[in-house]
Amino acid sequence: VRLDASNLSALARGCAVLGAGGGGDPALALAMAMLAVEEHGPVPVVAPDDLDRGTLVMPCGLAGAAAVADERVWSGDEGRILRAAIEAERGAAVGALMAFEVGGAGGVLPVTWAARLGLPLVDADGMGRAFPRLHQQSMHLAGVPASPVVLADARADTVVVRADDNERAGRLARSAVDGLGGVCAAALFCMTGAEVRGAAIEGSLTLALAVGEAMVAEEPADPIEAMLSVLGGELLAQGRVVELERRGIGGAGGASATIHSGGASRLRLEMQGEYLLAMEDGAVRAAVPDLICVLASETGEPVAAGALRHGRRVTVIAAPGPEVWRSAAGRALAGPSAFGLDVDHAPAAGRAPDAVA
Amino acid sequence: VRLDASNLSALARGCAVLGAGGGGDPALALAMAMLAVEEHGPVPVVAPDDLDRGTLVMPCGLAGAAAVADERVWSGDEGRILRAAIEAERGAAVGALMAFEVGGAGGVLPVTWAARLGLPLVDADGMGRAFPRLHQQSMHLAGVPASPVVLADARADTVVVRADDNERAGRLARSAVDGLGGVCAAALFCMTGAEVRGAAIEGSLTLALAVGEAMVAEEPADPIEAMLSVLGGELLAQGRVVELERRGIGGAGGASATIHSGGASRLRLEMQGEYLLAMEDGAVRAAVPDLICVLASETGEPVAAGALRHGRRVTVIAAPGPEVWRSAAGRALAGPSAFGLDVDHAPAAGRAPDAVA
Repeated sequence: VRLDASNLSALARGCAVLGAGGGGDPALALAMAMLAVEEHGPVPVVAPDDLDRGTLVMPCGLAGAAAVADERVWSGDEGRILRAAIEAERGAAVGALMAFEVGGAGGVLPVTWAARLGLPLVDADGMGRAFPRLHQQSMHLAGVPASPVVLADARADTVVVRADDNERAGRLARSAVDGLGGVCAAALFCMTGAEVRGAAIEGSLTLALAVGEAMVAEEPADPIEAMLSVLGGELLAQGRVVELERRGIGGAGGASATIHSGGASRLRLEMQGEYLLAMEDGAVRAAVPDLICVLASETGEPVAAGALRHGRRVTVIAAPGPEVWRSAAGRALAGPSAFGLDVDHAPAAGRAPDAVA
Repeated sequence: VRLDASNLSALARGCAVLGAGGGGDPALALAMAMLAVEEHGPVPVVAPDDLDRGTLVMPCGLAGAAAVADERVWSGDEGRILRAAIEAERGAAVGALMAFEVGGAGGVLPVTWAARLGLPLVDADGMGRAFPRLHQQSMHLAGVPASPVVLADARADTVVVRADDNERAGRLARSAVDGLGGVCAAALFCMTGAEVRGAAIEGSLTLALAVGEAMVAEEPADPIEAMLSVLGGELLAQGRVVELERRGIGGAGGASATIHSGGASRLRLEMQGEYLLAMEDGAVRAAVPDLICVLASETGEPVAAGALRHGRRVTVIAAPGPEVWRSAAGRALAGPSAFGLDVDHAPAAGRAPDAVA
């Protein structure tokens, strides 16, 4: 697979779906990526199994608040700055980039950086979706050090964080991101090709592509049905947002929404940066790390958690998250309790792998 | 001069005076320094002129909120962590430490680090007092890059900030300090011995020692008089705090106090982290970068801006700040306007240099 003008729109659509309401709007990152592949040529996507064992892989993406990211002007040069800092830290050349967060803008930004650097992108990521915290990654579960965490802005200011503890490294980085304007480019969990296998979530980019392509395919003509088929998901509700409550300044304390489909049933959604929990008649229908996606019923486009509005007609779907989050450690890191939600819910069985292949 | 158990208390007293109400309480740093010189031997103080031109000098101290610093538990190992990071960045061995901020705890903490590392301390600093912002240093005026700025906590977590612009570097570091718990150890403005001359404020440590020693000398027996003689300062008021207003959460928006000495005159003090402005009958008596110090009348001990209380009996003095802050660039960086104060006041003429020698 190569990423070029023919499939980048599909990638961006798929990344928006996998973002589960978070990760930032990929529209700007898509526009940049289109320009970058036009100027520098297509970006090869390489499967983890095809990486040389010694190749240094740099997972990269954006760190910070999605709401700020949507307005962020990227120079496109951030990948070079990140790479230079990582190469200085590691004393070795970076051989491939990888999105650490496939959901939202984070799945698309690395395309620009890879195109400009002439490097391939690994068909994998660290989340399989979007998460708010930098250490909520499969590499953390696999014991890969997050440090050095490199942050860079468009002016080439950099911050390098080193901590033995990945959660602390993420927290320190998050604090430094505030000084860089609330959002910036980041690289962390650098590892070799040998380490990628078993540590990263494989197939993330091709899954995003498959989702995005299904949404505009002629068969089946219904994009929701097509998406559900690729993701192995289910329809939770189609209806109207009849209640929406945002808590704290700018919704920082999370938000709740109720979707009324007609009849007695109401689906209640809990969200923070992402959609985290769907309840119906007192029962959990889906919960993080499962993907809960809200789509605008008129357009089929994913609706970010911060963009949901009262009165809007929406379709809500749920789909299994990556297998890695179903373990006890995975649930502790990225399950409902990690978000302060007191629900006991086993994640859905893993993604149907043959839907992607 | 060597720093040991015989003169460290004087150094700490002098640093508290030079802190002009800020820089953090040196009491804990003094206790640590006493232990460190007992275990590792005295710390030589070296004049800038006696440094080898090529010696790499590491200015260090604390970054963050003074109020947090007072409760901070230091491991004493921070100097080693800072040195290791700086040596990795510069590819050269650090040959001497220097306090970048002589005022408050920042003038005393490097004694512990120097003792444990077996390195001398340079008789100089970057502020000649305490300032709230990391780039408010004479080295900034001299064109020395602040970057790399290294921050370290007791767990050996580190953050390295690099920015071409010193103010931005300081801002990024300040933001990262929040993630390290609000206060941490810092090194920045590293330079060679040749650069120290002309870039640093010389004589800061021996001035602090002279102030601290004068305060307990038998002649003159009045510590205020002795201090004023060393600093070339003047008495502004002796009286009681009759008004005290702190603005914002935790006084973050600054504070004002009125000192009533009896009679009609009232001295009004404006403070943020430090005492910044003293007005009497509508006229400016002293303004930052001049030193304004408040001393408890009963004990003669300096009172931090955050520790001033209604009803307290105090003595207020003013003294000239270092010469470097009297230039136009110095006033722009560290004069009243840098603190949002709209007063036009020429700093007092420079410190009498022979009082120190």
